[in-house]
Amino acid sequence: MFFQRLKTPGLGHNSYILGCGQGLAVVIDPRRDVDEYLHLAHINELSIAYILETHRQEDFEFGSAPLAEMTGAKIVSGCHELFGHTDIKLKDGEELKVGTTRFIALETPGHTPESVTYAVYVEDAGDKCWGAFTGDALFVGDTGRTDLPDPEKTGENAGILYDSVHDRIAPLGDQTLLYPAHGSGSACGGNISARDESTLGIEKGSNAVFIKSRNEFRDHKLAEKMGRPPYFRHMEKVNLLPGRPLPLSTLQVLKPGDFQSRMKEGLVIDIRSPEAFAGAHIPLSYNIWLDGIPAVAGWIASESTRIFLVVESPEDMEQAVTSLARIGIDTVEGVLVGGLETWREQGLPIAMLGTTSAVETADRMQQEQVHLLDVRDEYEWNEGCIPGAIHRFFGYLEQNLPQLPKDSEIVVYCSVGHRAGVAASILKRRGFMHVHNMLGGITAWKKLDFPLDTPDRTEK
Amino acid sequence: MFFQRLKTPGLGHNSYILGCGQGLAVVIDPRRDVDEYLHLAHINELSIAYILETHRQEDFEFGSAPLAEMTGAKIVSGCHELFGHTDIKLKDGEELKVGTTRFIALETPGHTPESVTYAVYVEDAGDKCWGAFTGDALFVGDTGRTDLPDPEKTGENAGILYDSVHDRIAPLGDQTLLYPAHGSGSACGGNISARDESTLGIEKGSNAVFIKSRNEFRDHKLAEKMGRPPYFRHMEKVNLLPGRPLPLSTLQVLKPGDFQSRMKEGLVIDIRSPEAFAGAHIPLSYNIWLDGIPAVAGWIASESTRIFLVVESPEDMEQAVTSLARIGIDTVEGVLVGGLETWREQGLPIAMLGTTSAVETADRMQQEQVHLLDVRDEYEWNEGCIPGAIHRFFGYLEQNLPQLPKDSEIVVYCSVGHRAGVAASILKRRGFMHVHNMLGGITAWKKLDFPLDTPDRTEK
Amino acid sequence: MFFQRLKTPGLGHNSYILGCGQGLAVVIDPRRDVDEYLHLAHINELSIAYILETHRQEDFEFGSAPLAEMTGAKIVSGCHELFGHTDIKLKDGEELKVGTTRFIALETPGHTPESVTYAVYVEDAGDKCWGAFTGDALFVGDTGRTDLPDPEKTGENAGILYDSVHDRIAPLGDQTLLYPAHGSGSACGGNISARDESTLGIEKGSNAVFIKSRNEFRDHKLAEKMGRPPYFRHMEKVNLLPGRPLPLSTLQVLKPGDFQSRMKEGLVIDIRSPEAFAGAHIPLSYNIWLDGIPAVAGWIASESTRIFLVVESPEDMEQAVTSLARIGIDTVEGVLVGGLETWREQGLPIAMLGTTSAVETADRMQQEQVHLLDVRDEYEWNEGCIPGAIHRFFGYLEQNLPQLPKDSEIVVYCSVGHRAGVAASILKRRGFMHVHNMLGGITAWKKLDFPLDTPDRTEK
Amino acid sequence: MFFQRLKTPGLGHNSYILGCGQGLAVVIDPRRDVDEYLHLAHINELSIAYILETHRQEDFEFGSAPLAEMTGAKIVSGCHELFGHTDIKLKDGEELKVGTTRFIALETPGHTPESVTYAVYVEDAGDKCWGAFTGDALFVGDTGRTDLPDPEKTGENAGILYDSVHDRIAPLGDQTLLYPAHGSGSACGGNISARDESTLGIEKGSNAVFIKSRNEFRDHKLAEKMGRPPYFRHMEKVNLLPGRPLPLSTLQVLKPGDFQSRMKEGLVIDIRSPEAFAGAHIPLSYNIWLDGIPAVAGWIASESTRIFLVVESPEDMEQAVTSLARIGIDTVEGVLVGGLETWREQGLPIAMLGTTSAVETADRMQQEQVHLLDVRDEYEWNEGCIPGAIHRFFGYLEQNLPQLPKDSEIVVYCSVGHRAGVAASILKRRGFMHVHNMLGGITAWKKLDFPLDTPDRTEK
Repeated sequence: MFFQRLKTPGLGHNSYILGCGQGLAVVIDPRRDVDEYLHLAHINELSIAYILETHRQEDFEFGSAPLAEMTGAKIVSGCHELFGHTDIKLKDGEELKVGTTRFIALETPGHTPESVTYAVYVEDAGDKCWGAFTGDALFVGDTGRTDLPDPEKTGENAGILYDSVHDRIAPLGDQTLLYPAHGSGSACGGNISARDESTLGIEKGSNAVFIKSRNEFRDHKLAEKMGRPPYFRHMEKVNLLPGRPLPLSTLQVLKPGDFQSRMKEGLVIDIRSPEAFAGAHIPLSYNIWLDGIPAVAGWIASESTRIFLVVESPEDMEQAVTSLARIGIDTVEGVLVGGLETWREQGLPIAMLGTTSAVETADRMQQEQVHLLDVRDEYEWNEGCIPGAIHRFFGYLEQNLPQLPKDSEIVVYCSVGHRAGVAASILKRRGFMHVHNMLGGITAWKKLDFPLDTPDRTEK
Repeated sequence: MFFQRLKTPGLGHNSYILGCGQGLAVVIDPRRDVDEYLHLAHINELSIAYILETHRQEDFEFGSAPLAEMTGAKIVSGCHELFGHTDIKLKDGEELKVGTTRFIALETPGHTPESVTYAVYVEDAGDKCWGAFTGDALFVGDTGRTDLPDPEKTGENAGILYDSVHDRIAPLGDQTLLYPAHGSGSACGGNISARDESTLGIEKGSNAVFIKSRNEFRDHKLAEKMGRPPYFRHMEKVNLLPGRPLPLSTLQVLKPGDFQSRMKEGLVIDIRSPEAFAGAHIPLSYNIWLDGIPAVAGWIASESTRIFLVVESPEDMEQAVTSLARIGIDTVEGVLVGGLETWREQGLPIAMLGTTSAVETADRMQQEQVHLLDVRDEYEWNEGCIPGAIHRFFGYLEQNLPQLPKDSEIVVYCSVGHRAGVAASILKRRGFMHVHNMLGGITAWKKLDFPLDTPDRTEK
Repeated sequence: MFFQRLKTPGLGHNSYILGCGQGLAVVIDPRRDVDEYLHLAHINELSIAYILETHRQEDFEFGSAPLAEMTGAKIVSGCHELFGHTDIKLKDGEELKVGTTRFIALETPGHTPESVTYAVYVEDAGDKCWGAFTGDALFVGDTGRTDLPDPEKTGENAGILYDSVHDRIAPLGDQTLLYPAHGSGSACGGNISARDESTLGIEKGSNAVFIKSRNEFRDHKLAEKMGRPPYFRHMEKVNLLPGRPLPLSTLQVLKPGDFQSRMKEGLVIDIRSPEAFAGAHIPLSYNIWLDGIPAVAGWIASESTRIFLVVESPEDMEQAVTSLARIGIDTVEGVLVGGLETWREQGLPIAMLGTTSAVETADRMQQEQVHLLDVRDEYEWNEGCIPGAIHRFFGYLEQNLPQLPKDSEIVVYCSVGHRAGVAASILKRRGFMHVHNMLGGITAWKKLDFPLDTPDRTEK
Repeated sequence: MFFQRLKTPGLGHNSYILGCGQGLAVVIDPRRDVDEYLHLAHINELSIAYILETHRQEDFEFGSAPLAEMTGAKIVSGCHELFGHTDIKLKDGEELKVGTTRFIALETPGHTPESVTYAVYVEDAGDKCWGAFTGDALFVGDTGRTDLPDPEKTGENAGILYDSVHDRIAPLGDQTLLYPAHGSGSACGGNISARDESTLGIEKGSNAVFIKSRNEFRDHKLAEKMGRPPYFRHMEKVNLLPGRPLPLSTLQVLKPGDFQSRMKEGLVIDIRSPEAFAGAHIPLSYNIWLDGIPAVAGWIASESTRIFLVVESPEDMEQAVTSLARIGIDTVEGVLVGGLETWREQGLPIAMLGTTSAVETADRMQQEQVHLLDVRDEYEWNEGCIPGAIHRFFGYLEQNLPQLPKDSEIVVYCSVGHRAGVAASILKRRGFMHVHNMLGGITAWKKLDFPLDTPDRTEK
């Protein structure tokens, strides 16, 4: 029985391809770039017969339609009206048989109203449920956030999700293998485990949705404060439609002079590491480290932003373009040939940023006027910060700059230094002259046993 | 938490690499070619700190020693005397902590006396057992064979295994993920599921060791008749020693004339499909289809046989050489450059074999004297055969030829046609002139609803 | 200076990508699947600025238009009216400067009327010509065929080509590197060297166009008898248009039963080796070995034939589909999942073909009535054949079957056995019952010093 | 005829594999990691029969012996005594026939006394020479340096080399393809063309050895001032012996704490870009950018230096280890797991370097006391420098530090910024506190039309 999890880096997204007997396969929650599903089907001599959607994804663009077009597969979902574009709509409890494998659709709302879990029964595993494709209802170590459909109803939806998990999923039994739509790193859950392999029995002993009471769980969800990147709105629209294949690449490789002219039409995104960006970068560029593109770019750019990339290598460029396409951004127009190296060889202007360490920052705080800026998510900030820091989530920073003189000394930090790099590039764009990225972030600060504060005691 | 199963094709062998926190990893039951473990450790930025052996493997050569040498890892096992070469010997119930992960050694004899299961507890999965590396004690859908240490004690060992599974493994709980040392296609179990993903709870509802009583299980194991390839003896010896790295490749690519001279020093193995071999082959060569090498070659060749290969492509050659090395055969001395094509262009002698289908065979049986030869394993033969067939397991065929005139018409069959290809090549070598491979085998025969017989009613 | 030759297997086609300084590159005579050019440009940090066409190719579909669309490059040609779709039309002797590199267009008709050679001058090689992209005017060891525009004018065009080479190309100097559009294996020249590296000076000492007189050369070209596959007409049409990108893959992986139903809508092409096809195949299928697809498929299928493939592996399938697309055939509709193995396991009908060797054939010719059928190109046949053979070029065989009883013993041969495999499959389709492929072909026959005859002394 | 050039990045080394007919191949001047030759031979179905050495290489370790051991090939050379370890010693003018291809050894001393050129004649190229493997006698656009055997005899050897090229190589004819042992980027020639494809005829019109007189050429060689990395001495020794295969990898992936302890045993080499190193690095580490390792590492480390690497990715690590092995350094003992990111997350100390641009430097020179340090090769320095700069070749910098106060402001530059990064890391190690790397180097300075000076007018 062929079975494989495909992880989408940076989005924490899991999709799956499952051989079902008789040469047939299903794909669960495919992403937009569908080559890998086709390839796996080919080399395992399987025909993709059905595509199962657990819910309308908000954090990436679906690949159901292009995959269906290429394979002739039918798109399957629950029967909620948000599944407008699907071919087969299963009622609650209804079975789909594929080859020798049976899928039972279970309505499991809470994360979103249309969410469905597919309980899977395979031929040689007896009568018990083999596994469950739970979408965003139940993750390893966490559950889907409940604030997306309506932030006002976060608590109410938490209760609905609690009931979905307890009444519909838990009865499948301890032995059930758990295959959710996201793993760690997803914007759809704040505390997903870095481990992919789990079962319902394991979750029952460790997951908040099981070890808390219904009320405690509601409070727990109400306390979750996760950002909602602006591109989610676009995904909500796009994923109502039959879906779009990847566009033909028309990316232009630009020489430094041409890049300099063209870059004024849009935004420059420099995908190198924070250290390299600090060392030298093109003035006014944003710094989004490569692996952070899926999670961060949707805060900076929209589907109509013209994007110009500064990259370290062609492979990095290709990954960046695919990562952007996965969140619906097809507007990368140019890339700087040869990266920053060719730029600086032309004598074109470069800018630098400061870097610093936790030790050095602590020293400076004793001696001089330094402003600390924490740019993490609100829920991270709430768990403890550096004494004296102020907080601005990096995603809202450009619209909500700190009220500080442009020549003040600012040390930016996040957990380890990547998001602080994004924030530092934003501050630099906005004219702050002395910006330093505290590399290692609060992780290093804690390792050194430096003091922490709780936000309510600090300036907000 | 990085975790990956590595499957060794043709052997049905599973090894595993598991990230344990703090940048450390363990490898469970590594094979001899260890590059892939090193590569996975590198790209996941892990240091391999321990190598866990579940038992002394009999069907392939261990890679513990070369992997330890390359990484500085310690080799871990139970404390049975057969684990003479290991660095750390865990007592029954003793814990090994690696990073944030805990391994508890459980003695689970039955398949072999020294067999150990490692129960794994990971940091964020609560108190329950996360998964178990069960070696050959418990497979998905099956258990390890119990005839290997002593065929006379098959039943006794079946009882011991039954107790190991029920008393030591079952208590770990339904939620426990199951990670055995073999999957389907292994010579260590006759009925392993083609599915890799399972849990103890799933097995409890479907695996013979759980749904049969202790006595029924013993009878079940006694009825299992699996071949024991001669190379197992060599593996038993080799796996007592500290292990050998892959040898430097000294394979010679030979021109047809040189191949013809050299091949007399050893055996010619033609790794093409049965159809291609039937179409044309070098006289006196053996036909072992590529994916069958790990399971079949140990019946034909020993660790001191000089081997000359006929291949379809260089990739196939490389796979063949690696497959042979995995079962301890490092003596491939030459390969025919350009495969059979260059051979026949030189006007060198070629031979052919007949092929036939189930329909044609059934027709011929009505009209003329045809001898049917079933070359499957004894347990397959016992489940039903073509009326009038005689049985010779292919592994013993060359020492136990059918008592038929050399000019009789012989139709050889197995399940689908691969092992029949091996057998046909053996008969041809031994002078039988009219040998036909019934392609599709008994699988096609059954699809066509042709009659079956039980062996005791046929000539044996 | 980045420079790379890209060979298209089976077509003997060469295209090139050349870095020209200042981050710019040109591609010469691109094929339809343009990914590789884009990839090479990316990793070498080059922007493809121009696409140079040497002539309207007749044996494969051009990729100029899709490559231009993806890169913004301009398509460059000579100014003959057959270059209707190009952006820049260079006059004879006109220069195109790209970066620091200069290209001079030279009109070199003969193979086709619009043929152009591009003489290249690079910055650091002094004043002498560095290399020449000669299209089909001058190959390594040969020249382009002169019968394509009008078979009646083969001799006349040979003279024109002779003059093009002597008057326009030869003066570039002995030192000039030679970069033609085809290498060995092309249908555009019968005797192209298997060596890719040459210079004008080397050709002057060895190429027929240089070592023969103008009249001798004309006679030489008149004696060339090369087949003209029917798909050339389609290419002539397609390559007048702006070009088509590769289609989206909609290939269906079919189970044996579905394959059996669907295959009646079109043709079954079995891409395995002649030996494997002989061993067993689906009745009525054609046998075209994988690497022979580009050269052979255009004789069997047109751009509107629905094609169903039998393959050995998924990689082979992908190569087959790409090979067909390169000659304009986008109509592969299905592939048999798992190849012939799954087919025969269902008990579905299979057929066999005979194989034989040169030695065995010679023996049989002494003893019984055997008909020999030579299916090579006419020019090969003219150079010598087996005594008593009759000739039918495989490309015309289905329309021109030999006048023999259906139950006669027929031995088919070609040079080594591939084209004989195609022919044997055609004869089998047409009801000939006893067809044998003489593996090794006339190559083996000659190695054995068996007698040859000249065709005029044999039945034609 | 299979033929392929294999380039070794960073060394500018070319080796070649040439199919010679009859299934045989030769390899010319192989490097130490021989997998690629074996792989190419396999997929082209060739048997490597001979290994040809043009001279005892000084800049990399030969792979002749391991390749011979793996293939059974014979090692071929000229008959000078420095070729002590070879199997076949050809006299001047003596022929070696391999398959259908002929090699004539021509003694062409000058770069080194034992240097040999192999003139190659292939079957279908007529009587003229097809190509020449010239070793370091004649490059594309340059010749081998003549100072290596004895700096005192640079001029004398230049004359000998001039005669070798004119008397032995030039007579092979304009049409001869040129295949030297090095391309651009080599330490064996200062001005080798970035173009790989050339012929003798092209060189005759553009190469200094042809367009200068014998005396002019001698002066030209005398004026060449190229560094001689210390590891050359080791190569001279090693390449007299039968050669060493690549060692088994025993590289340890170290956690930050372990790395910090272990790194004191040797040197830390940080292989990231100069920008990234400037942004943050481990105190006292050297910065050698990845592609610069073959050319630079031999100035910093010897064959007995214990090396600890800081890398960006596992692929980079593997390239670094291979690059070091190619110059005979097998002593990489550890790599920092996860690169600098894990280091800084532990709160461990980091250091920074300044970066600057040409514009900013020019501004600062107006306003304050800035010391400019040029670290290029002497011959580059002699061609023009920034006014006021002092010169220290980076390779000798650590033994020859500038006489400046440790707290002075120092701007380091090279051609574009890589070697300046090496030099800046050395200065930082030696206690200079305010070091800035002028990114873009003198290349940017010139693009901006800033003034240049000649060294003799500046402080030396």
